[in-house]
Amino acid sequence: MSIPTTPSTPSTLSIPEAPATGNMSPAQFRAHGHAMVEWIARYMEHVEDYPVLARVAPGDIRRALPSSAPDAPEPFEQVMADFDRILVPGLTHWSHPGFMAYFGISASAPGVLADFIASALNQQAMLWRTSPAATELEEVALGWLRQLIGLPEAFEGVIYDTASISSLHALAAARELAVPGVRQLGLPGRPDVPRLRVYCSDQAHSSIDKGVILAGLGHEALRRIPSDADYRMQPDLLRAAIADDRAAGIRPLAVVATVGTTSTTSVDPVAAIADICEAEGIWLHVDAAYAGVTAMLPECAAHFAGLGRADSVVTNPHKWLFTPFDLSAFYCRRMDVIRQAFSLTPEYLKTPDAARNLMDTGVQLGRRFRSLKLWMILRYFGADGVRARLRAHIALAQAFAGWVDASPDFERLAPVPFSVVCFRAKPAGRAWTEAGLAALNERIMTRVNAGGEVFLSHTVLRGRFTLRIAIGNLDTTQRHVARAWELIREALAAETA
Amino acid sequence: MSIPTTPSTPSTLSIPEAPATGNMSPAQFRAHGHAMVEWIARYMEHVEDYPVLARVAPGDIRRALPSSAPDAPEPFEQVMADFDRILVPGLTHWSHPGFMAYFGISASAPGVLADFIASALNQQAMLWRTSPAATELEEVALGWLRQLIGLPEAFEGVIYDTASISSLHALAAARELAVPGVRQLGLPGRPDVPRLRVYCSDQAHSSIDKGVILAGLGHEALRRIPSDADYRMQPDLLRAAIADDRAAGIRPLAVVATVGTTSTTSVDPVAAIADICEAEGIWLHVDAAYAGVTAMLPECAAHFAGLGRADSVVTNPHKWLFTPFDLSAFYCRRMDVIRQAFSLTPEYLKTPDAARNLMDTGVQLGRRFRSLKLWMILRYFGADGVRARLRAHIALAQAFAGWVDASPDFERLAPVPFSVVCFRAKPAGRAWTEAGLAALNERIMTRVNAGGEVFLSHTVLRGRFTLRIAIGNLDTTQRHVARAWELIREALAAETA
Repeated sequence: MSIPTTPSTPSTLSIPEAPATGNMSPAQFRAHGHAMVEWIARYMEHVEDYPVLARVAPGDIRRALPSSAPDAPEPFEQVMADFDRILVPGLTHWSHPGFMAYFGISASAPGVLADFIASALNQQAMLWRTSPAATELEEVALGWLRQLIGLPEAFEGVIYDTASISSLHALAAARELAVPGVRQLGLPGRPDVPRLRVYCSDQAHSSIDKGVILAGLGHEALRRIPSDADYRMQPDLLRAAIADDRAAGIRPLAVVATVGTTSTTSVDPVAAIADICEAEGIWLHVDAAYAGVTAMLPECAAHFAGLGRADSVVTNPHKWLFTPFDLSAFYCRRMDVIRQAFSLTPEYLKTPDAARNLMDTGVQLGRRFRSLKLWMILRYFGADGVRARLRAHIALAQAFAGWVDASPDFERLAPVPFSVVCFRAKPAGRAWTEAGLAALNERIMTRVNAGGEVFLSHTVLRGRFTLRIAIGNLDTTQRHVARAWELIREALAAETA
Repeated sequence: MSIPTTPSTPSTLSIPEAPATGNMSPAQFRAHGHAMVEWIARYMEHVEDYPVLARVAPGDIRRALPSSAPDAPEPFEQVMADFDRILVPGLTHWSHPGFMAYFGISASAPGVLADFIASALNQQAMLWRTSPAATELEEVALGWLRQLIGLPEAFEGVIYDTASISSLHALAAARELAVPGVRQLGLPGRPDVPRLRVYCSDQAHSSIDKGVILAGLGHEALRRIPSDADYRMQPDLLRAAIADDRAAGIRPLAVVATVGTTSTTSVDPVAAIADICEAEGIWLHVDAAYAGVTAMLPECAAHFAGLGRADSVVTNPHKWLFTPFDLSAFYCRRMDVIRQAFSLTPEYLKTPDAARNLMDTGVQLGRRFRSLKLWMILRYFGADGVRARLRAHIALAQAFAGWVDASPDFERLAPVPFSVVCFRAKPAGRAWTEAGLAALNERIMTRVNAGGEVFLSHTVLRGRFTLRIAIGNLDTTQRHVARAWELIREALAAETA
């Protein structure tokens, strides 16, 4: 045998002991682990003592930390002490019941415990054999969720990290079908491939833009169909846009409909859009990242009419199913197309079994044991418990909407199908310019957020600066929502005094 | 205010209490959390009692689980009991010191504890303000790692989930530079955009193939340059391929060099490749997902000569820096190009501060608080402690290589620059066909893996079926490696008896 080893080849069984090797000992882990449980339990008890929005300035955290790693090991207690002293003031508390910005989310305790054990087990479910449990639990837990939200059995599921990645796979699948040979030949330098088009409403999420760009279609390939007064895609305009594009030699690739847009949680008319997609032979992807879980509520069923006719659907348990970030559930009728686009097995990953390998269902080879938290959450809360919590959040938002509607000094700016209310202050008895209202409402938001009890975010709707209140945290109760309303009214009073 | 709320608009502060709302109580969390710490500590103590490779058959786990979610909540203890009974037998134990397949990895205890608290805090660091701590700690911890592996300060870092996603961003950046207007105009239907080309060696990872496909370049756009006898890319052949492509009107986009390939951990000559890329104006991405961390060892410095001349580099702390899956560190000299390709801020994500927002550095909007585990690991072990552990793993692999080299019945099939040994049984004194050797070695691997003490994987090198032993688990010691060697020799004896 002639190949030299590098840097040296000991020829006996003797190996020098390294000065310090191995993991933290189980005894040390026990001590630090129990302390960590106490830390988290106290955090759960006292989260409302923190200002929900961090009060540090950019650079504060960075400047408080050494610029280089230590050479010598440090005790874990010391690391935790610095965590408390330096990092905790830089947290924005997504687990605070006053977090009502963007979308309110929850790291439920069973989900946190599931993530803990998943990290310790360090399953990497690229192949069935590298984690039969993670591979098959993913199938089972996604099957449970699929049934709960009423998707037909024809939809196969896979877990990705984010909706950005889920929707990207939908676009890739649509591209695979619409552009023959695209996997092998690609897009450039092909006279046989015309310009391509993806359609979504003017309210669709920015992840669709990024997906279109990454897939090489170009941002111009995304055509945003105007939404109606309630921020819903207008099917007639979609149909006209497709006809217009076809006439111009542009090939339609996919339509992305949204159930629960990010600004207003508006609901595109999926059934009418599905009619068009079926007639035109265009892939229909439904982005239900936030609202999808409410398909398990009979009273929300109307919002999801036609969902089962989509080619692919994404919903994010990390948004409104109490799942610690990250877990995005992607369902697809044509997972064979995803596999056709991406499956590729190098020799070192070939296995003797004939099992389904999750690495074939996407661009990411490695994957965490994410299904564990979804499974534990669905069992711990039960489907009825999940429904009750979703209903509670929706009821809180409806109540808030009622207060807005009843006030002469505020106006609501969009329907409230789920748990987000879009509104603004517009005090009665005065003439307002749009610019004046925008400035007033921005000052109200800034004042409320500075108080530390509540964190609100904004959007802009048809040029109007709009406040948003988003209910989704498991610990948010009527008290918090009423307090938010009180703080907003106080801020209005202060700003108009 | 005329817009109706859906489904109803209560007009008073009264909201019915939902039957069961809220999170698990802090007291319950304490009880279950402490039990979980004990579970994990016992797992750490007894991981060697499990067969490292799961012994279930495809479908066993799925069939043992109910096909639908429960309606009623279930006690957490019951969920954990089912976890023990049904799922644990389906785990392949990546934390077992006998896990020597693919790459040996470690979920170090400080990393697991960091993941635990990260899940509880549920930071979502899309914007600086949504987690100043996660945003700035990412910068600091990546700065520490950058210095340790000797990358110049010009490299800015960002954390992604996997090397697949890191390398995808490198390709997207290269495309952004090489194809004017690609973000806006895309690739199809443009006579001004010729066929494009990405180069890597015949040993490069499959994630490069998937990235090229996803980016719309087409699999044919990936040209694999033959490697030399030691599985290293041959720069002369790269230079010739580029000239050849340019002559054919194909535009070179990027070269992906690998330091530590997946099959053999071979090292492409980065400096010579950097010379070519600089002369040709081609993006150089270095995939050091597995081996990159050893750049912190002076004795490994030669493998990384020229690394600082790359445009982008990926290394995965979840591979060989004791970090629970997932955490991929991406460094780029031209992060402005990544931002130019992907940054896009919808109104609802605009913020008043001028801080750097991590959502601008990639396709994924949401991101976990991954930097916390990297920071805690670097502090807990210290740079010296990390180096000692890397050296211990390399020494174990070198020792194993020495045993192979000293045996008349085995041959080594590749150099051992890091902690992976490629070898096969080839008993002396007989004539062997390649097919006979392949069958023999596959049977040896199957027999060893069935024993439950050790898990090995294979590759194929120049048509030769090759066994791999990969050392990277923190708890793997000389005893385990010696036992693996003993089991392999016993299997050879049994298969040739």
